[in-house]
Amino acid sequence: MREYKSRIQGYINESKNQSIKLLQRLVQEDSISGNESRAQAIIMEKLREMGLELDVWEPSKEEMQEHPYFISARSNFNGSPNVVGILKGTSGGKSMILNGHIDVVPEGDLKQWTQQPYGATVKDGKLYGRGATDMKGGNVALILAIEAIKNSGIALKGDVYFQSVIEEESGGAGTLAAILRGYQADGVIIPEPTNMKFFIKQQGSMWFRLKVKGKVAHGGTRYEGVSAIEKSMLVIQEVGKLEKLRNDRVNDPLYDGVPIPIPINIGTIHGGTWPSSVSDLVVLEGRFGVAPSEKLEAAKEEFEKWLRDLKMKDEWFAEHPVEVEWFGARWVPGSIEADHALVQTLEQNYLEITKQKPVMEAAPWGTDGGLFTQVSQIPMIVFGPGETKVAHYPDEYIDLEQMFLAAEIIACTLLDWCGVQEQQESEGAYEGEGVL
Amino acid sequence: MREYKSRIQGYINESKNQSIKLLQRLVQEDSISGNESRAQAIIMEKLREMGLELDVWEPSKEEMQEHPYFISARSNFNGSPNVVGILKGTSGGKSMILNGHIDVVPEGDLKQWTQQPYGATVKDGKLYGRGATDMKGGNVALILAIEAIKNSGIALKGDVYFQSVIEEESGGAGTLAAILRGYQADGVIIPEPTNMKFFIKQQGSMWFRLKVKGKVAHGGTRYEGVSAIEKSMLVIQEVGKLEKLRNDRVNDPLYDGVPIPIPINIGTIHGGTWPSSVSDLVVLEGRFGVAPSEKLEAAKEEFEKWLRDLKMKDEWFAEHPVEVEWFGARWVPGSIEADHALVQTLEQNYLEITKQKPVMEAAPWGTDGGLFTQVSQIPMIVFGPGETKVAHYPDEYIDLEQMFLAAEIIACTLLDWCGVQEQQESEGAYEGEGVL
Repeated sequence: MREYKSRIQGYINESKNQSIKLLQRLVQEDSISGNESRAQAIIMEKLREMGLELDVWEPSKEEMQEHPYFISARSNFNGSPNVVGILKGTSGGKSMILNGHIDVVPEGDLKQWTQQPYGATVKDGKLYGRGATDMKGGNVALILAIEAIKNSGIALKGDVYFQSVIEEESGGAGTLAAILRGYQADGVIIPEPTNMKFFIKQQGSMWFRLKVKGKVAHGGTRYEGVSAIEKSMLVIQEVGKLEKLRNDRVNDPLYDGVPIPIPINIGTIHGGTWPSSVSDLVVLEGRFGVAPSEKLEAAKEEFEKWLRDLKMKDEWFAEHPVEVEWFGARWVPGSIEADHALVQTLEQNYLEITKQKPVMEAAPWGTDGGLFTQVSQIPMIVFGPGETKVAHYPDEYIDLEQMFLAAEIIACTLLDWCGVQEQQESEGAYEGEGVL
Repeated sequence: MREYKSRIQGYINESKNQSIKLLQRLVQEDSISGNESRAQAIIMEKLREMGLELDVWEPSKEEMQEHPYFISARSNFNGSPNVVGILKGTSGGKSMILNGHIDVVPEGDLKQWTQQPYGATVKDGKLYGRGATDMKGGNVALILAIEAIKNSGIALKGDVYFQSVIEEESGGAGTLAAILRGYQADGVIIPEPTNMKFFIKQQGSMWFRLKVKGKVAHGGTRYEGVSAIEKSMLVIQEVGKLEKLRNDRVNDPLYDGVPIPIPINIGTIHGGTWPSSVSDLVVLEGRFGVAPSEKLEAAKEEFEKWLRDLKMKDEWFAEHPVEVEWFGARWVPGSIEADHALVQTLEQNYLEITKQKPVMEAAPWGTDGGLFTQVSQIPMIVFGPGETKVAHYPDEYIDLEQMFLAAEIIACTLLDWCGVQEQQESEGAYEGEGVL
């Protein structure tokens, strides 16, 4: 095995330039939701070149929309295909799904960028651009890992499924579509930007919209009305109390030092139509954090009950209850035990290659990983190159050496996890490039 | 004098139909700001018919804009003339300005009307339509009062100036223009809809905009940011404390029973751009009530200082002070002593005609009257037909009998205030209609 892993290392070292070029081509495509097709075409071309079996399809909203975890603002996914590249194993090994999303968030205010958002400029070992770290860098690490195995003439026993999915940034419809298409495996690695930490737990989240009612009146006789703005203040205060209660329950040592493990963030507030009128409606929108092991349904019910109980604090809410709507995005929480074989295999390879123990953490944000954990019950870990703090921000970048390191650790993990078919047995198992 | 007043009553009784027709024509013109010219043309036609001296001009923004009490969102007043009709006295009497605005607020949501907003339908003694009560009904009462005097062959000693002004609903530029044009008098009556009460004090008001700052962060790690929404809650709370302090100072018995004589109303709130981000800016807009005898400048300074002092409650505000902007509308407060001769003259006539004492009140809203009080130091009272509660609302209406009653009370007040030139002396003083 040591010999195989050293071949992997050698291959990756020699392939840096071509991998950087691949990442550049991907970053140059602004694959925001609805605009993924050109980036996916590059992925398809690359996978085909590598000799992988391809599965390409446009997710069907009709087939998914009854699923309780389906969420999407899109009317259809025409022109936004999912792409899966399959490296078939020789049999007898454990299988792995390597999942990465191809969609990126919009570049935002151009004035805040010092680099071209889709320029993919390389400078001081960093590649700049929207999606570089979230998560085209992770995707290239996956492709390079598979390529290193394949082009080093190593045959795996278990199957490897590389999934380049759409719609992660808008709630995970791409990954849900892959799950519903029947993809199963013994483990999943998602190289979202963890800065090489092991995110063995991920916070889930759901967006909510609250409508707080008042009664209109002229501002000069405001005592004749009921201000929805003032009532909102009570609502916000009480939501804060629920946040405290929920977080006091979190006793996982992974969250030690995190001030609020599962925040309830009220992100927007809009109310009133006229400065000198008493507002009769305030709309609050926010993000409700869900603990890694919590069910979304239970979290929703707790919030809704808490809001119903507002009437015990203020009679106004008995006649005018706060309306709750769950809308927009939702990420299912995920978790895996620290002593799970998948974590240990990855940890062992991390240790061998970096000579350090990985940092285990609970992620403050969700990924598509929760869908694997909760919908298809596949053990899943989030581990990848790039720093969270630059994701979604101007001048997003990825450290290229970290990307190569992730590729090597993942490739070596695949060898251990899927098992290697000894070479003499595997002869003829690969056509095409036929390396070695 | 009794004989003159009985002639007035007789004239008004016989002129009801023609006055209703005049009001209908006026209500049928949707004279919202910028669209007053057709309604003013009807006024001009009527005043000319009555034989009054006319002064018609479009206010000049250039001439007014340096004035500290000028406020208007318009770039100019082209097509929006002020109209003044002058009934010259024979000399030796006190003069009076009768002021009413011709502009109306928009009709709003048509679905909430059961009547045509500009239909001017008469039903059960009420005339329905936008502006019927605020304040075309009051204007018709003024015109009818003057016409009753003139067509009853009564000659006044003092001058009467009927001002049909624009822009009251947007801050008073029309009345300010009339003041700056040089109109002066010994008293002013404004028949805004007081439901026949005497509003001897009027609350002023100013609109403000507050910008409350925060620090952006991802909702999943919201403790890394500072929520402008949470900071706004503190601001709103502290504004509430200032409101209490300011209202505790109001000890005028006229305000007994008014829960909040000079409210600070926060009418709108807008903040945040994304449910799962910590908001870095909240904008609050509101109306700051100003006591009848208070200077606008002093009220502003008190509010600004209060907001500056927020830093003593929360250090955040030391580095990130709340920004205050005074914008949009502003109404100057007004007040007159209850024992002023103008009030007493009006009161005496009210008593004689209705056999009841009038109700004296402090108005919860401002009118153009404050400009007369504070800019030209003319004693001014607000008294008119129609109920405040239907002004600016769907199905606005005026009780027509109340309008005629107001006309009679105001006409008789003019006789006492301006003085009547005995008939033999006044012969030949009137040309034209030559009634009697």
